[in-house]
Amino acid sequence: MNRAFLRTAARLLQAERLPAARRHASSSAVFNWEDPLAASELFTEEELAIQDTARQYCQEKLMPRVLEAYRNEDYDRRILEEMGELGLLGASIDGYGCAGVSTVASGLITKEVERVDSGYRSGMSVQSSLAMTGIYEFGTEEQKQRFLPGLASGKLAGCFGLTEPNHGSDPGSMETVAREHPTQKGTYLLTGSKTWITNSPIADLHLVWAKLDGKIRGFVIERSKCPAGTFETPAIKNKSALRASITGMIQMDDCPVPVENMLPDVEGLTGPFTCLNSARLGIAFGSMGALEDCLTRARDYSLERKQFKGNPLAKYQLIQKKLADAATDAAYGTLAAVQVARLKDAGKATPEMISMIKRQNCDRALHNSRILQEVFGGNAASDEYHIGRHVANLFVVQTYEGQSDIHALILGRAITGKQAFV
Amino acid sequence: MNRAFLRTAARLLQAERLPAARRHASSSAVFNWEDPLAASELFTEEELAIQDTARQYCQEKLMPRVLEAYRNEDYDRRILEEMGELGLLGASIDGYGCAGVSTVASGLITKEVERVDSGYRSGMSVQSSLAMTGIYEFGTEEQKQRFLPGLASGKLAGCFGLTEPNHGSDPGSMETVAREHPTQKGTYLLTGSKTWITNSPIADLHLVWAKLDGKIRGFVIERSKCPAGTFETPAIKNKSALRASITGMIQMDDCPVPVENMLPDVEGLTGPFTCLNSARLGIAFGSMGALEDCLTRARDYSLERKQFKGNPLAKYQLIQKKLADAATDAAYGTLAAVQVARLKDAGKATPEMISMIKRQNCDRALHNSRILQEVFGGNAASDEYHIGRHVANLFVVQTYEGQSDIHALILGRAITGKQAFV
Amino acid sequence: MNRAFLRTAARLLQAERLPAARRHASSSAVFNWEDPLAASELFTEEELAIQDTARQYCQEKLMPRVLEAYRNEDYDRRILEEMGELGLLGASIDGYGCAGVSTVASGLITKEVERVDSGYRSGMSVQSSLAMTGIYEFGTEEQKQRFLPGLASGKLAGCFGLTEPNHGSDPGSMETVAREHPTQKGTYLLTGSKTWITNSPIADLHLVWAKLDGKIRGFVIERSKCPAGTFETPAIKNKSALRASITGMIQMDDCPVPVENMLPDVEGLTGPFTCLNSARLGIAFGSMGALEDCLTRARDYSLERKQFKGNPLAKYQLIQKKLADAATDAAYGTLAAVQVARLKDAGKATPEMISMIKRQNCDRALHNSRILQEVFGGNAASDEYHIGRHVANLFVVQTYEGQSDIHALILGRAITGKQAFV
Amino acid sequence: MNRAFLRTAARLLQAERLPAARRHASSSAVFNWEDPLAASELFTEEELAIQDTARQYCQEKLMPRVLEAYRNEDYDRRILEEMGELGLLGASIDGYGCAGVSTVASGLITKEVERVDSGYRSGMSVQSSLAMTGIYEFGTEEQKQRFLPGLASGKLAGCFGLTEPNHGSDPGSMETVAREHPTQKGTYLLTGSKTWITNSPIADLHLVWAKLDGKIRGFVIERSKCPAGTFETPAIKNKSALRASITGMIQMDDCPVPVENMLPDVEGLTGPFTCLNSARLGIAFGSMGALEDCLTRARDYSLERKQFKGNPLAKYQLIQKKLADAATDAAYGTLAAVQVARLKDAGKATPEMISMIKRQNCDRALHNSRILQEVFGGNAASDEYHIGRHVANLFVVQTYEGQSDIHALILGRAITGKQAFV
Repeated sequence: MNRAFLRTAARLLQAERLPAARRHASSSAVFNWEDPLAASELFTEEELAIQDTARQYCQEKLMPRVLEAYRNEDYDRRILEEMGELGLLGASIDGYGCAGVSTVASGLITKEVERVDSGYRSGMSVQSSLAMTGIYEFGTEEQKQRFLPGLASGKLAGCFGLTEPNHGSDPGSMETVAREHPTQKGTYLLTGSKTWITNSPIADLHLVWAKLDGKIRGFVIERSKCPAGTFETPAIKNKSALRASITGMIQMDDCPVPVENMLPDVEGLTGPFTCLNSARLGIAFGSMGALEDCLTRARDYSLERKQFKGNPLAKYQLIQKKLADAATDAAYGTLAAVQVARLKDAGKATPEMISMIKRQNCDRALHNSRILQEVFGGNAASDEYHIGRHVANLFVVQTYEGQSDIHALILGRAITGKQAFV
Repeated sequence: MNRAFLRTAARLLQAERLPAARRHASSSAVFNWEDPLAASELFTEEELAIQDTARQYCQEKLMPRVLEAYRNEDYDRRILEEMGELGLLGASIDGYGCAGVSTVASGLITKEVERVDSGYRSGMSVQSSLAMTGIYEFGTEEQKQRFLPGLASGKLAGCFGLTEPNHGSDPGSMETVAREHPTQKGTYLLTGSKTWITNSPIADLHLVWAKLDGKIRGFVIERSKCPAGTFETPAIKNKSALRASITGMIQMDDCPVPVENMLPDVEGLTGPFTCLNSARLGIAFGSMGALEDCLTRARDYSLERKQFKGNPLAKYQLIQKKLADAATDAAYGTLAAVQVARLKDAGKATPEMISMIKRQNCDRALHNSRILQEVFGGNAASDEYHIGRHVANLFVVQTYEGQSDIHALILGRAITGKQAFV
Repeated sequence: MNRAFLRTAARLLQAERLPAARRHASSSAVFNWEDPLAASELFTEEELAIQDTARQYCQEKLMPRVLEAYRNEDYDRRILEEMGELGLLGASIDGYGCAGVSTVASGLITKEVERVDSGYRSGMSVQSSLAMTGIYEFGTEEQKQRFLPGLASGKLAGCFGLTEPNHGSDPGSMETVAREHPTQKGTYLLTGSKTWITNSPIADLHLVWAKLDGKIRGFVIERSKCPAGTFETPAIKNKSALRASITGMIQMDDCPVPVENMLPDVEGLTGPFTCLNSARLGIAFGSMGALEDCLTRARDYSLERKQFKGNPLAKYQLIQKKLADAATDAAYGTLAAVQVARLKDAGKATPEMISMIKRQNCDRALHNSRILQEVFGGNAASDEYHIGRHVANLFVVQTYEGQSDIHALILGRAITGKQAFV
Repeated sequence: MNRAFLRTAARLLQAERLPAARRHASSSAVFNWEDPLAASELFTEEELAIQDTARQYCQEKLMPRVLEAYRNEDYDRRILEEMGELGLLGASIDGYGCAGVSTVASGLITKEVERVDSGYRSGMSVQSSLAMTGIYEFGTEEQKQRFLPGLASGKLAGCFGLTEPNHGSDPGSMETVAREHPTQKGTYLLTGSKTWITNSPIADLHLVWAKLDGKIRGFVIERSKCPAGTFETPAIKNKSALRASITGMIQMDDCPVPVENMLPDVEGLTGPFTCLNSARLGIAFGSMGALEDCLTRARDYSLERKQFKGNPLAKYQLIQKKLADAATDAAYGTLAAVQVARLKDAGKATPEMISMIKRQNCDRALHNSRILQEVFGGNAASDEYHIGRHVANLFVVQTYEGQSDIHALILGRAITGKQAFV
């Protein structure tokens, strides 16, 4: 299989692309409300083509499924394979069957997926940014060879076990432990519980963080090799959001993991935080996709819906202000995400930058989606308008991988040199 | 059946009431975070007792049902009968099997129901404030005798058909029409569609507003008397909120209604607006109940949940600010609702006052519930914490019976003398 | 001189009062945008008459002076005497030349003064709520007789020295000390600095808090009796707000105070906090007066100013929303202040209640005044529109006597039982 | 005189620049709270050097003057000459004694000036973006030769007369008219009033917009050539903000202007709007400078000020959140301004983009400066902390050159295709 598919597709698309509304001829500038500050001017042709590929897939293949998936909390496992087919998984990784595109291109993929649904994006992020990044950054060459191609193709599903029932914002206090097997050399036994783990019920590979001799280490648990009774991943049902993704727990009871599955090169919170940073950068892009979808839908609705003497809602000042605010925040957030992605590829990004854009973009996406929801009036309660789904999702997106206040305190510490967590 | 049950129960309760935490001994003032500005000092003993009765019922009978009801969009029709049994329906109406309590008492009942769920409150409001109030205020004595006792007991379910698919904020443009039956004297034929009608799929009586010769008139449609094919009330499913209530459409196709079922004393929007004002006043109370429940749950969670060196979340400044803000808005909103309720009983309330408190209390309930939701972090996504349900509900509560912006323009018109709707 | 003047004037006024727009005939309710929730229905005739007296004085005597006073930071000392003449100083104190009116009446006076200017209200509050309340609550009968009548008449000016350069929100850490005179029995020597003290440069009596043997005690310093070099009260100039009041420091260098001038009945922060609570309750009323003035001025401007085809600004949705929001917060804040004032007179108010209303009313007054300022466009920069002055003042009003965040943490502690100050 | 001074200075500076804290070694990324998203990575070396030159001048020459200037409303006319000396005026214009730097460089100059004071920046903007841009874009070669060098050097002061007493947001309704002199061919007579004109009382050249035969045209009025009684520019005193700049009216009574002083190439609002767009882009940069100064000052204060057990304010969560929010908005706003500046130089910027960034950056600068002001507690009232000055200034900056709501409606129109101004 040729992993260069994404890039090839991108290049082919370039040739035949319709004159994209979002790019201006250099001679006569035209305002494009869908890209108000012309962020697309910052993208390479390849990046634009990749975005088109991703958007086409998302709108044609994901969008038609999302309503039922959300209603029934029914995640379609085949989505990972479809994404793998297109090269969307672990796209910024070089080699091992991955596309090796820029961080911006990877962010644009994320944005297109979340334009449909944050849950679908979560499923992809967990695979790409958390599981694959962890193995790619901290695994041995042998581990990369063993695990990454399967994850890249979507034939294997991965997940990432960090959060525990009693330790959300403070993973350093985790209770899950690994200990050496008392008799079987080269084997560790893991015991503990992880919760709110996207994909855990369907994952084949679980990158789980546990304390070994008091130090946090990463272990790749292969479900197929776990003895009965040592490893369970019950689904969490009746979620109030992200219902198009599947979420569960990971319960380990002396679950044996061979030393070959321990990530050798990392200790402490560096490992999980590196993965989280990768995911958070994706979220900074993704949340802007969800917000843009809310904006597009609210605009469309406001143009179609007429009240008071046949005026479309779009004619009213209070409506226009909501649209203008949302467009502004989406444009600003996209620029900031692109900047950090470029810095990352130049080796100049820092975790605090990622805290800033993850926090701000999620906060603004959530805030504006709620305001845009008002445009729909009572119809917002109908799931067929999709806005309520985005609003519910974005609350969780704001919360996970660092709740807004936590990132505020990370930034506050970076600004003042004082920590205020306790 | 003795409709004085509520008052009797209230009085009995008074005798044996536990020393309520919410009332201070007059000698030594103690701050009660559940009633920070001591609104209870404004209530009569009877009102306090009625509130206790209602709270006991709601917490003991409604609370245990709400989770499943919300998950499955499954409203239990028996609730109306239970409420009727206790005298909670149409409670401020005098006679016709109703309790005849003060508007404040009625508001406190509403608050207790919405403390459990806005959907349950919606079901009650539609019965009491919309259907019963409409008949009580504008019906003939004969109509009151025929319909009110059954509605008060909950044996009959009522609903209120005003909103149409194309006319939400602007009911004056409704398209539903009534015309005289071409041959059958004393009968009107109603044709048109109403939507987002709480209780419509289960209602026995539908108070529907339609234009007769261009003027809006009210008709009580008795489902049991409608010929097949003239009257349908399909449920609207997959709502993103208020799932514990049942909502539907009313589709009328030359549905015959006898003249005896037309409200004789009202024409134009006065009729529906009078009912809406009654309901909105209830919502001003009810939304404060939902907010208080969010506050209580967030406070409890913040005291139990420990992060960072074993500190409860309640110890953190950013958490405390959220709690303080919510408590403040709940206290202010309650005082304002009580004031307008007292004015109403004194004949001094105006629709603009009700616009003000409906709008502000809904806005603040929604805003604060969302902020409090953040306290729960990722756990907010679990419906067992209830906060997500309140958040989703309160968005609709803010929206229906006058979206926030509409009430802003009503107030703006009252303040400036200029209308800005078009 | 007859201290019952205020009450008499009030009663006389009652007889001839113009039909007040703000009160409705009981038969036909009319919405009054200046009192949207009819708070005036909660006032006695006497209270209404006192408010009228105060308003008349403020509008006729203070309003014409404020522009120049603010521009030049030039407080007119005669104002205290004028207020004393009318019985407005220490109005809720019974006896000692004070009017002995209800706390609501006292709050309404405060509101009328701050309707003109928060600085004028500050000058009055310091005299009434801080200096006079301190002496009245904790002084000996002899101290009350000596000091209160002069303060009540405005012939003596008082001030209140608590805040220090290094200790604002945390007065318990004050550094000012009192020690027994090494040789002169019955005399204390006070040393230290107080800052941001309203009226200090013109005050005759300074109620200063200092630590004696580590315990905070109150001393009434009579300026006229201080030896040269022991007591200085330099003015703080070039303030960015409250420029119509005079503010300064109090610098004490072994300033001798006789034991007869020490408040005998209070120790610790109880003394200053009792005074502050009285002042804060006044601020909760006063800030609503300033906000109402902003609203009135913005409304007037919006009706007069025409833009775009001759429409008055008042016709635009974005303007109406600002007005509606402000009117709502003013109405809510007034109701809350009245409630706590009534509770205070019934012995049922607590400091936390006062924290809540001081915080919320100041926050909302500040927020809305800023929003209303936008209505004036560029003209807001002209001081003749007065709005900029209110905005600047209200920031300080929000900050002093407990900054908003501090009160949030006081409330947070009351709600959770956990303190989060450190 | 060598107009290449700015560029030369820039290049010289480059050689000896201290290792700028704001730029990271490419190998090891370090978070810099003063440039959190590393906007400086987007600047050329020349641009960075120009920013350094400007900052040095502003901090060394402007900062020491601002306090007295603001207190006394006393603008120092020499500032324009100093700026001219350094090449800061009309810096993005090519030729005519101007530096010809990039729009980004020009924006960075603006930012540095406004870091000191928005009034100083206003004085510069009027000269550069309004007067000079107008002449440069629409003047004849002869007009450019006559006027631009003097303006570039600061020896001539320019101003821009568009706003009228009755027409702020809607300049198209202006009342100022030009008519042909009844007898003197080649001369126009201008009559009308302009107000809120920065620099008008000191300007030598006034670019005034007036209707000639119903069409808006631009005229350069040379004060020195106006007959007595035909041209007055009274100062507006007692401003509540921007007091370090000088503002006035322009009153014209048949003021004669030769045809050689009429801009030949523009008609209608295109002329003034082109100038305003240039100025607004500058404001988008400048407001971020003011915000950054607020942030720096609040941070410093929070680190120095200790309350409650000796903790610096910087240690508290509620303080850190304020700092984090402000830093985020400053970083986002800077990126957006840089993007539009780059687009402008590439011929791809549109007026709507400039509306977006002018509005958002001003709104956020104002909002955050107010929040940061709270950090200072009571001390914010002292002008020596500078924060109150920024807050007052930023309100006007938000308001002038398109009030926030006006830009919202411009954006709303661009998004929806519907205009909502009337």
